Parts: sequence; C-alpha cells; structure tokens
Amino acid sequence: MDSRAGEESKAVYTAGLYRGKPYVSGEQPASGSLKLNTNENPYPPAPGVLRALSGFDGERLRLYPKQDGGALREAIASRHGVGTENVFVGNGSDEVLAFAFRACFGFGRERPVLFPDVTYSFYPVWCDFFGIPYEAVPVREDFRPAAADYARPSGGVVVCDPNAPTGVAEGEEFLDMILEGNGGGSVVIVDEAYADFAGAESSAIPRTAGTSNLLVTRSFSKGRSLAGLRLGYAVGDARLIDALAATKDSFNSYPISAPAETLGMAALADEEYYRAVVDSIVRTRDETAIRLRALGFGVPDSAANFVFAGCGSARRARAIYEFLREGGVFVRYFDMPRIDDHLRISIGTPEDMDALFSRLEEACSLKI
Amino acid sequence: MDSRAGEESKAVYTAGLYRGKPYVSGEQPASGSLKLNTNENPYPPAPGVLRALSGFDGERLRLYPKQDGGALREAIASRHGVGTENVFVGNGSDEVLAFAFRACFGFGRERPVLFPDVTYSFYPVWCDFFGIPYEAVPVREDFRPAAADYARPSGGVVVCDPNAPTGVAEGEEFLDMILEGNGGGSVVIVDEAYADFAGAESSAIPRTAGTSNLLVTRSFSKGRSLAGLRLGYAVGDARLIDALAATKDSFNSYPISAPAETLGMAALADEEYYRAVVDSIVRTRDETAIRLRALGFGVPDSAANFVFAGCGSARRARAIYEFLREGGVFVRYFDMPRIDDHLRISIGTPEDMDALFSRLEEACSLKI
Repeated sequence: MDSRAGEESKAVYTAGLYRGKPYVSGEQPASGSLKLNTNENPYPPAPGVLRALSGFDGERLRLYPKQDGGALREAIASRHGVGTENVFVGNGSDEVLAFAFRACFGFGRERPVLFPDVTYSFYPVWCDFFGIPYEAVPVREDFRPAAADYARPSGGVVVCDPNAPTGVAEGEEFLDMILEGNGGGSVVIVDEAYADFAGAESSAIPRTAGTSNLLVTRSFSKGRSLAGLRLGYAVGDARLIDALAATKDSFNSYPISAPAETLGMAALADEEYYRAVVDSIVRTRDETAIRLRALGFGVPDSAANFVFAGCGSARRARAIYEFLREGGVFVRYFDMPRIDDHLRISIGTPEDMDALFSRLEEACSLKI
Repeated sequence: MDSRAGEESKAVYTAGLYRGKPYVSGEQPASGSLKLNTNENPYPPAPGVLRALSGFDGERLRLYPKQDGGALREAIASRHGVGTENVFVGNGSDEVLAFAFRACFGFGRERPVLFPDVTYSFYPVWCDFFGIPYEAVPVREDFRPAAADYARPSGGVVVCDPNAPTGVAEGEEFLDMILEGNGGGSVVIVDEAYADFAGAESSAIPRTAGTSNLLVTRSFSKGRSLAGLRLGYAVGDARLIDALAATKDSFNSYPISAPAETLGMAALADEEYYRAVVDSIVRTRDETAIRLRALGFGVPDSAANFVFAGCGSARRARAIYEFLREGGVFVRYFDMPRIDDHLRISIGTPEDMDALFSRLEEACSLKI
C-alpha cells in the first residue's frame, strides 16, 4: 500500500483540469490602507441591518434556508412594484449574472452575444465558462457604446448601465434603440450594479413589465453597503425568472443563506438611511471629478460610485497607481487594451478623498 | 412607445432559455411540522457559533469578503492536517461539487463519468448542466455499489460515502479498489456530506496526500448544524484545488460571505460540543433502525444521519409517506426507479422519533 501511494504521488494528475482564464477582482490590502479599488461603500449598513444581525436567532441556522429567497424575494418585488414571480435572488449580482448567461444565452447558439469591449471584464469570462460565443464591440473614442452597434439580431446583449469602469450612464433612449433593433430575438441584460448612484428614476426595471426579453440585475454590495453579505437579484419576465431558477436548481439547491435573507430585508426597509448615504457619495464623487480635472486628469461625468481618471499615457497611469500604492492608497489599474492609461477610483468619505488628493498632488508635483 | 410596448408584451420571448431538469430538494413545511425530510441536524449550532454571530461586527459587511475563504480555509486545513493550498471553500458542498464537476471532469470528454444509479440525485443534474457525459452504474440488489464497476478507465468517478439515500458506508478498501483500477487517469470525487456520522476515523481525506486525483468534499450543513449558512469545502491535491479556484473565479468573485467565514471558524473551534451532538444522533439513529425493523421495515445499517426504510412496495411507501405527511410528519419519498418502495427518514431528537413512531405505528395498525 505504501509503495503504491508513493507511485501515485509521483504520477500527478493534471489532465482534463479546468484551464479557463478567470476574472481577477481588486486586491485586498492589509487593514490601515485606504481601499479605493473595489467600489465598496465607505459607510456602514443601515442601523436596522445591524439590529437584524444582532437579533438573528442563530438556532435557525440548523435549518436550510428557503429554496427561492423567501420573504426577501417578496420584499424586492414589492419595492420595485413587480410580482414575486419577476424576481430572482442570488449570492451577489456576479452569481446572478453567471446564472443569467447560462439561462438566457442558450448553449452553443450560433450568433454571438454582444457587449462593449470596455465594460465589466467578467462578461467574456462567463461566456467562455459556459461556451457561449461573444463579440466585444468596440466603444467609441469617448468610451461610450453606440446603441446602433447592438441594435441588430444577436445571441443576446449585455450592457452595464452606468458602465464600469467608466461610470457613464446611457439611459432610456439607448436601451430603447437596442431593444427595438434586437427585435425580441434574444435576451437583453442590463447590469445595474451601480444604478443606485445614477438617480432614483434611473433604472430599466419599469421597462421589464412590457418587455419579455429584458432582464435587469442589481446588487446589494454597493448602494446597500453589503458587499460582505453577497447579495444580488434580477428582475424580469416570469419566464426569464423561471429559467434562472431552473439554472440555479441545476447548480445549488439553495440561493442565499438565511442571514442574507434576513439582513437583505432589513436593508430594504431603511430607504431614508440609504438615500442619505447615496447622496453623500454622489456629492463626494462630483467634487472628486472637479478636483481631478483641476489636476489635469480627464474624467467623464460619472453616475456610479467611482470615477475613471485618464492619465495621458499608460506609463503615467501605472506610475501614479504605484506611487499611490506605496503610500497605502489602493486604486484600480487595468492592464488592458484601450484603458491602460486610466485609473478607476472608488468614492470614499470626504476624508478618504482628501487623503487620496494629498498623495495625488504629491505625485503631480513630482511630475509623476 | 406605448404601442410598441404592447406589441412586445404579446411576443413573449422563450427561445433559447434554459430547459434543463433541475434537482428537487425536500419540501419546506410550515413551522410546527416535524421535518425529517432534508437531513438537517435537530440540535442548534455550538454556543461558540451563536456567540460569534452576536459578536459579529456588522460594519464589516460593507467590505468584500476574502477572495479565497481567508482564515476559515486555514482553519479547515489545520483541522485535517493538510496545507491551505489543499482546501477550497464554497456556498455549501452542493456548490463545491458543482465547481468540482466543471473543474475536474473536463468538458466534452469522451469517456463518461461513473457514479451509482442509487446515490445523490444531483450528480446527473450537474453532468447535464455542464455537458459532461455520464453513466449511472446500477448498484447491486442490496443497493451497494460494487467497487469493480468503477475500477476501470473513465472520465471520472463520484461516490457518496456514506451513500445517500441508503446511509451505507463503503470505506477504505472500496476506495482503494476504485483508485487502483482508475489508474490515475481521471479524478475520483468522494462526497463525504455525511461522514461526520460515520465515525471519527472514517474519511478519505488522509488518502488525498498521496493521491493527486482524489478530491473529498465536506459539508457544514449536517454535522455542524449550519445548513442555513451554506458552507462546504473540498480537500485535495493543490492542482485540483487550483482548478477549483479558477472555476470559481470564472463564476463568482468571492467564495463565501463574511459571516460564513467567521461562523464556520467558530464551528470548527468547538469539537467537544459537536462530538456530543453527533454521538446523540448516532445513538438515536441506531435505535430508530431497531424500532423500524421491529415494525417490519427493511433498514440497512446507516452511517449517516438518516435511515432508509424499505416498505415492501412503492404503493405502500407512498401511502405511508402521505399518511405521515397528513399527520405533520415530513419524510422523503423519491419517486424514482428502484427506490420508490423506500422512505428516507432524517434522524431528529429522541422526542422527534417518538412522534414519528407514534404516527408510524398507527399506519401499521391501520394496515397502510
């Protein structure tokens, strides 16, 4: 037996293992650093969420959670004025989007799924993971997608609105053009991870009622300060939601943990707190853009909780990124075509941004 | 715009939506019922888990969790005497197994993955979900898999040990034969969701050190009373774990929530409590088997937290299931070939089982 175990340890198994190229999320520095690299919310969850947490009956954890998101699903439906059958919940909008790609974009269809070449870089990863053909459509020089490019028959469309990493929102007319040109032949997904910061009226969710091929995804991570809880959802026609549920039930028996269900409901219950949080972030964001422009950075108007700062060259963007990092200030640098001359900077508290600017002004005065 | 919305609502999109056959988990009756249908633990999580929950700093929830399971991954490694690089954590062992099927069983390989026809019914669902060919190998008349059937070149092997829904454990020699016949040409997964109830020494985890194609999965749901938290893990060669991590990172950026990491660690810290819980369940299980046999049911020796009760015929099994259900006692009935004459009964407290037997004796005296 020992000799066989020895042989086996020599013959290492690697054939047939997964070799896909994964998505890489922002690094997690030691505490004490200023973390402006993963679009987290600088303010804590609502007091009601903290109360729901400390009041959570831990003995309930011995039981499985609801198979469909339970009361949280109902609360989300009620908040958006849609039916419970129009809502799907999952472990973050990343997971919801992963299921949506599998549920909505067929499997081995011939026409490619369309999304911008400058957008959330998880979209091509999900396509590769599920074997879905795609076309990354070049955005214009101003980094904005042209609706006409997506207004045609396709295997599906994904738009992030407001877009990442640019922060720019496109809005209603853009989506209207895409839906009209798509002609209902495939599913259009609008990823609204950042929509909480784009104005209360800015969402494609109301449009899902009359549009059976439109799916909108949302996150509790950013606007609701709950990145650590992993909670997201999708809203759409009941047939899309049924396909999402069948996909989830072919992967994992339960959608979210029992604490996520309870705390998510508490987060939805305190609109006033979160409105104030979002207002603060929006104010800080707009001031940040002004200050960055005054330092010579090119910054498009952001509708998200981050700004996208053009540094003039890839060399300079990387140098500033590293200079900030050495000073304990983490922003996001994407070593990718077209955007390697930009930095994506999450919006913190006003004090966080003062600390950023102190280091950034030093970089500028050193001609970095 | 209104007229177009009207047209769209008539042309309902359904083409290309996911149509896979999902797994169906046990139903969730109203509270007040006796729930012996999903193998939940009748005892609460350890006192230390409840303390970790009430002491959890809710403000941390604004930040993303660790990308690799953080300190929990280290604690699991330490508990099993393996390296951190040998451990992968996820949202329940269901999710870990889903990732493992994708990570380890190639994609479109020619040889089928092998597992018993009577086992956890999620295995064929995962194969279909990822397009992996499989062969459900008939178990013997006594419902036990014959090792020789799996000891041959294949696309991979999955065995649940102790097996579900039979509860029977196969152990070391069975696995040795499979590994030897497999010859290291594909991955062998041992699903140990119920191993906590099979005796402290009963696990294939020590065998992973010398066997690069062996992956063992575990759950916090049953033995650790944490079904509502969604927590599971895998142990294996670092190359298998790397493939699992790449798979996860191609699907969802973060593996588990921040509360799951913290509470999971607290659960691992209180071995004494959980040993007592497991001992109680094992005692009740063995008494339950004796009482069931005394009533005429055929019950194989179980090494899990449930028993598998043969009722003589499918008609009678279904009738008893329904009679129990009408009395508020939920057990699991599988309307599937070969096992439709059995009931799977989760082990509760001694009082829970007395309530079950009270109703079951009534069924027997009524000649149901």
